Amino acid sequence: MHTIGIDIGGTNTDVGFVNTSGEVVLRRNLPTAQYSDAEKYADDLAKLILEMKNELGVEVKGIGIGAPNGNFYTGCIEDAPNLNMHGNIFLAKMLEERLHLPCVLTNDANAAAYGEMVYGGAKGMKHFIMFTLGTGVGSGIIVDGKLLYGHDGFAGELGHTIIVPNGRQCKCGRRGCVEQYTSAGGIVQTCKELLAENPEYKGSLSQISVDKIDSKAIGDAANQGDKLAIEVFERTGAILGLAMANAVAFSSPEAVFLMGGPVKAGEVLLDPVRRSFDANVLSNYRGKVKICVSQLKQNDVAILGAAALVN
Amino acid sequence: MHTIGIDIGGTNTDVGFVNTSGEVVLRRNLPTAQYSDAEKYADDLAKLILEMKNELGVEVKGIGIGAPNGNFYTGCIEDAPNLNMHGNIFLAKMLEERLHLPCVLTNDANAAAYGEMVYGGAKGMKHFIMFTLGTGVGSGIIVDGKLLYGHDGFAGELGHTIIVPNGRQCKCGRRGCVEQYTSAGGIVQTCKELLAENPEYKGSLSQISVDKIDSKAIGDAANQGDKLAIEVFERTGAILGLAMANAVAFSSPEAVFLMGGPVKAGEVLLDPVRRSFDANVLSNYRGKVKICVSQLKQNDVAILGAAALVN
Repeated sequence: MHTIGIDIGGTNTDVGFVNTSGEVVLRRNLPTAQYSDAEKYADDLAKLILEMKNELGVEVKGIGIGAPNGNFYTGCIEDAPNLNMHGNIFLAKMLEERLHLPCVLTNDANAAAYGEMVYGGAKGMKHFIMFTLGTGVGSGIIVDGKLLYGHDGFAGELGHTIIVPNGRQCKCGRRGCVEQYTSAGGIVQTCKELLAENPEYKGSLSQISVDKIDSKAIGDAANQGDKLAIEVFERTGAILGLAMANAVAFSSPEAVFLMGGPVKAGEVLLDPVRRSFDANVLSNYRGKVKICVSQLKQNDVAILGAAALVN
Repeated sequence: MHTIGIDIGGTNTDVGFVNTSGEVVLRRNLPTAQYSDAEKYADDLAKLILEMKNELGVEVKGIGIGAPNGNFYTGCIEDAPNLNMHGNIFLAKMLEERLHLPCVLTNDANAAAYGEMVYGGAKGMKHFIMFTLGTGVGSGIIVDGKLLYGHDGFAGELGHTIIVPNGRQCKCGRRGCVEQYTSAGGIVQTCKELLAENPEYKGSLSQISVDKIDSKAIGDAANQGDKLAIEVFERTGAILGLAMANAVAFSSPEAVFLMGGPVKAGEVLLDPVRRSFDANVLSNYRGKVKICVSQLKQNDVAILGAAALVN
């Protein structure tokens, strides 16, 4: 029996068939951004899944979906700001009707956390927190070996806790959210602030046009010893470490996991994160909480996590 | 069958026998502050319990204890800063040995949250957060109808999340903890800052010697319309509402409960708390989370909560 994991992003929808060993044996994608009509999107997604199923000639146990603003309780994508399909999309039900397979939906960061627990570095852990750093900052929280959903299915929005009162304007309408400092775009913003503060700077980032600077370029520069780029990650790590310390005071986890594009910068980010975490965490927890990088391939984690929800 | 609830505070230890209707039928106390030897304390506590048991002539199912720095997993009070008995006190085991009754121990704020769920305003709720405002600020978090303990038993230290980076010095060694702004002492500190900012102030608080100003006096003044006292609670509510909004992004609760001395000030505190919460909470949660005051008598809640742990 195979399971299907679907990872819905603003640009692409990745569909993977996962075997019982936790391997993605077949993967295809659909261009999410081209859809404004959810019914058409569900039609094409169902068609793609059927094609893949026929190609493999396997039985399927069920479908798991990780989606932005995905609500586990209702199977609904609730007005996700980065999709061109607006309003409430009851995608779990829509796919069940089309494919006659059980379908579970959750938030994409939750799926990543679940995937880490079932297939990755969090195997055997009962309490941990996953921060996903990307265009936005998401989080998935495992409590007693289960995803924490809360009263209405939206637990774990740690990217939208306020970490700098009256800080940077966030797309959510408030100011100073963790996401504004630790997402890929937040890191670029910090870099631009540092470039403005240091007009005399002549390092490698000064040779890139400002609108081309991304978190990867900053990471590369930092790893080549560029002082300004290193300072960007110092500031990023200071905020992220504080956010992690505050989160730990909530659920007292065994570990905090990090994943996503900015984490690929490696020690230039992780070292300041650890220092800030140690400085900001309550002594009860100090030295007890592991800080880990996701051990799953970034392309696989959301598919595997979504698929694992079926079991 | 009765249960016994024990609420250990820095000054007094309250012992209550609770009947099956959730009523405290007999209550006595022991002066915690007079003990520096934990063995002697356990001896006297056991003796008191036996006297009470004989007086009532009832059978007892077990004992629940709420204690500062109480660890549910180990039954240990771990180096509580406000006790004169230092180090690790394995009180659950010590009482079991003396009384041959099953004994459960948890943190005092956890006991309060549990009491609220079993006997108070949170009956039937599966997800809520309790903030206890007193000398310190504690919290108890209910997830899926159970207390959240986390990996090592110390989940729910929301009084020690950092809410004002580089803010007021906290006894925990860090700066800007929620406790420093929303505990009874934190409110007094805010009042002193406002008195310093307003040398022309001639209201009722100016007639009290500075070392006599407490959160009750400020609450009374605010309720009589004193503008400086009202501003104290505005600032307190702004911080507490933000802390609550951040906590909600973690576990998506149905309600946040408040209890403790400063909450007795009533609307002068609750109104700014609600406004700050609404302004600072992510839109996903806005209008969905109840803000409630504990419905249990403050003297009873910790005893009832501790006793309820036995069931």
